[in-house]
Amino acid sequence: MEQGKGWFSKPRVETFSDGVFAIIITILVLELKVPHIEHPKDVAELASALWFILPKFFSWVISFFMICVIWVNHHRIFESITHVTHRIFWLNAYLLLWCAFIPFPTALVGDYPFNPLGLFIFGIVLGLMGLGFTLLRRAITKEQLLAGHINPKAFKKGNKNALIYGVILYLAGGISAWIHPIIALVIFAFIPVYFIFFNVQAGIENA
Amino acid sequence: MEQGKGWFSKPRVETFSDGVFAIIITILVLELKVPHIEHPKDVAELASALWFILPKFFSWVISFFMICVIWVNHHRIFESITHVTHRIFWLNAYLLLWCAFIPFPTALVGDYPFNPLGLFIFGIVLGLMGLGFTLLRRAITKEQLLAGHINPKAFKKGNKNALIYGVILYLAGGISAWIHPIIALVIFAFIPVYFIFFNVQAGIENA
Amino acid sequence: MEQGKGWFSKPRVETFSDGVFAIIITILVLELKVPHIEHPKDVAELASALWFILPKFFSWVISFFMICVIWVNHHRIFESITHVTHRIFWLNAYLLLWCAFIPFPTALVGDYPFNPLGLFIFGIVLGLMGLGFTLLRRAITKEQLLAGHINPKAFKKGNKNALIYGVILYLAGGISAWIHPIIALVIFAFIPVYFIFFNVQAGIENA
Amino acid sequence: MEQGKGWFSKPRVETFSDGVFAIIITILVLELKVPHIEHPKDVAELASALWFILPKFFSWVISFFMICVIWVNHHRIFESITHVTHRIFWLNAYLLLWCAFIPFPTALVGDYPFNPLGLFIFGIVLGLMGLGFTLLRRAITKEQLLAGHINPKAFKKGNKNALIYGVILYLAGGISAWIHPIIALVIFAFIPVYFIFFNVQAGIENA
Repeated sequence: MEQGKGWFSKPRVETFSDGVFAIIITILVLELKVPHIEHPKDVAELASALWFILPKFFSWVISFFMICVIWVNHHRIFESITHVTHRIFWLNAYLLLWCAFIPFPTALVGDYPFNPLGLFIFGIVLGLMGLGFTLLRRAITKEQLLAGHINPKAFKKGNKNALIYGVILYLAGGISAWIHPIIALVIFAFIPVYFIFFNVQAGIENA
Repeated sequence: MEQGKGWFSKPRVETFSDGVFAIIITILVLELKVPHIEHPKDVAELASALWFILPKFFSWVISFFMICVIWVNHHRIFESITHVTHRIFWLNAYLLLWCAFIPFPTALVGDYPFNPLGLFIFGIVLGLMGLGFTLLRRAITKEQLLAGHINPKAFKKGNKNALIYGVILYLAGGISAWIHPIIALVIFAFIPVYFIFFNVQAGIENA
Repeated sequence: MEQGKGWFSKPRVETFSDGVFAIIITILVLELKVPHIEHPKDVAELASALWFILPKFFSWVISFFMICVIWVNHHRIFESITHVTHRIFWLNAYLLLWCAFIPFPTALVGDYPFNPLGLFIFGIVLGLMGLGFTLLRRAITKEQLLAGHINPKAFKKGNKNALIYGVILYLAGGISAWIHPIIALVIFAFIPVYFIFFNVQAGIENA
Repeated sequence: MEQGKGWFSKPRVETFSDGVFAIIITILVLELKVPHIEHPKDVAELASALWFILPKFFSWVISFFMICVIWVNHHRIFESITHVTHRIFWLNAYLLLWCAFIPFPTALVGDYPFNPLGLFIFGIVLGLMGLGFTLLRRAITKEQLLAGHINPKAFKKGNKNALIYGVILYLAGGISAWIHPIIALVIFAFIPVYFIFFNVQAGIENA
């Protein structure tokens, strides 16, 4: 049995990870607090109070789609492997650590959208998360866990993409915040847009 | 394999979506805070404090059953399709985005039940969510993903119902808030009632 | 297929319900806030601050095991049925509504353990939840959904137990709070103790 | 069927437990609140405010990996047994009770990292959780639930390890806080490090 070699049940690791992703993506919204207004029926007062939290709404939308992108990449990787070893489990735990942390830098950017430090931390956290994907992919190649239906060359090319789009782009976003916050926000918003609209083919090649 | 065409594992997409629905429906109650009273043993003081948060309780009940209705529709759609493509995945993500957002307008309506702007936003958010179902259903027809046991004509009729009850009714509720908040509340409360008590047959025809 | 008759996928309804139970049982602890103390290193000050929130800890423990008992009953019922009809789904939703509401009366009792109104509401909510089990069990008998390996007589006896221990005992606890809060607390604490230590045999007979 | 003997569906108990673990590990981060600063664009002010909550970040990381270790042990135990009896279910519930409680002592240590009482409570709670594993393992041996592919001698050796690393080490950490908080923090941080980097072989032997 799998047990005899210290392996893990792939479905339970997937269920656990899916649970973590589903919770992160849902609790993000708890950071959006209903603003307090003096006159409960006053439309203008409520409108201006909501206008004030609009940056929080946009940082929430970006984080939501980023987590969807992470879920897609996670799904592709776990579909590609035959079993979960000790190393894969703990690299996955490292990945989930930074995913579970995302609500904090998201709230930071939502509260202080024009403070470069918040955007820098957001980029670093996402970059450290992306590093998890790169380490996972290297371990899969090293431990020869690729399932038979996966093309090893395409998988290796995916490793390179994961490094470029999953680590370097996030770090670039974080660093560019020191030049101007808007550049960082544009780079961060670009990442899910790229994955959703332009990476269809890449997804097919990699997987 | 599915992978080769860039498809997704249907069970994992369902598990992920079910997780999101289960969390939304459960964290909604966190908006109901226990009121602070001066004399912890005073029954009358606690009673009047609880009376004050009764609108929050009702907006919570309406949102709870609305999410159940959304779950039922989601379940019916995913039972109808053979596999999950890139387009279906991201339309599903769009749908989940607005579902995950529901706690915010729910709290807004709970805090300011007689402010038309809050009710209007509630209707818009639910309408944008309903648009997700309409887009999903059109994509299913376009990409010919219907499973063999589903009647395509009944499914198309379902598309029309989804547009009427899932988009137009929510928008009508939101817009009517500008006439009188009570009209909006009645329309919003009517939607789950309709689905639970009158739409049994429709569910059978569509699916 | 099940779909053709408007039925639901039993595994997905179970996954959704399990998700709701898992979340309720886990978020309950969020009500236990770390108390604020003036001198962060002062042991005596922290000890007395924690002593003050001890009632919250005990109401949390009781609610935790109550939800475990609810999970067990839910599990037994869903193991007993062959499929999930429209009526079963919505009675299950009614049950989950009151389950999802439990964190609120739990916090109420934790904040005001000696206010009879809080304990009364706790009893009413749990009683309305228990009513869900009674209605579910009646609908199962009426719609003849019992699986072949279930003894219908034992199931009917279970219906009676569900009414006595799941509705009447909770209501009795709520009402007795008006005599003395301690009586209510003892009755509420007794319910999970009874199920865990004395109801082993009953579980076997019913199921 | 399993039902006839009052047993539980192993997959549903696993799904429920996985849900609880996934939620605990994810909501831990909600304790990390974005600090309030006076000048939203001031980098130095934000940096010093974040520096102030760094202990919270580290207590979060330790708790995160501890829960991963708990998940691994839980997974190994449930892979080792053939079915879930009444006793196993309720010992599992006892285990989940203390797991679900972890966010509270984690926040306590994060808020008051140099108060020995907080660290002592952290150790006691984790020790009581570890006791759950010891009781579970004894019940499994007593009720002869071990699956055929598990070596009973290796399992018994695992029982001893569970007692040493899962109970005694946590209690030792808690008690040592009265000598010096740093000793406790080092012991707590050591536990996941040991499991991740040195216990690979033990995992294989036990399971």
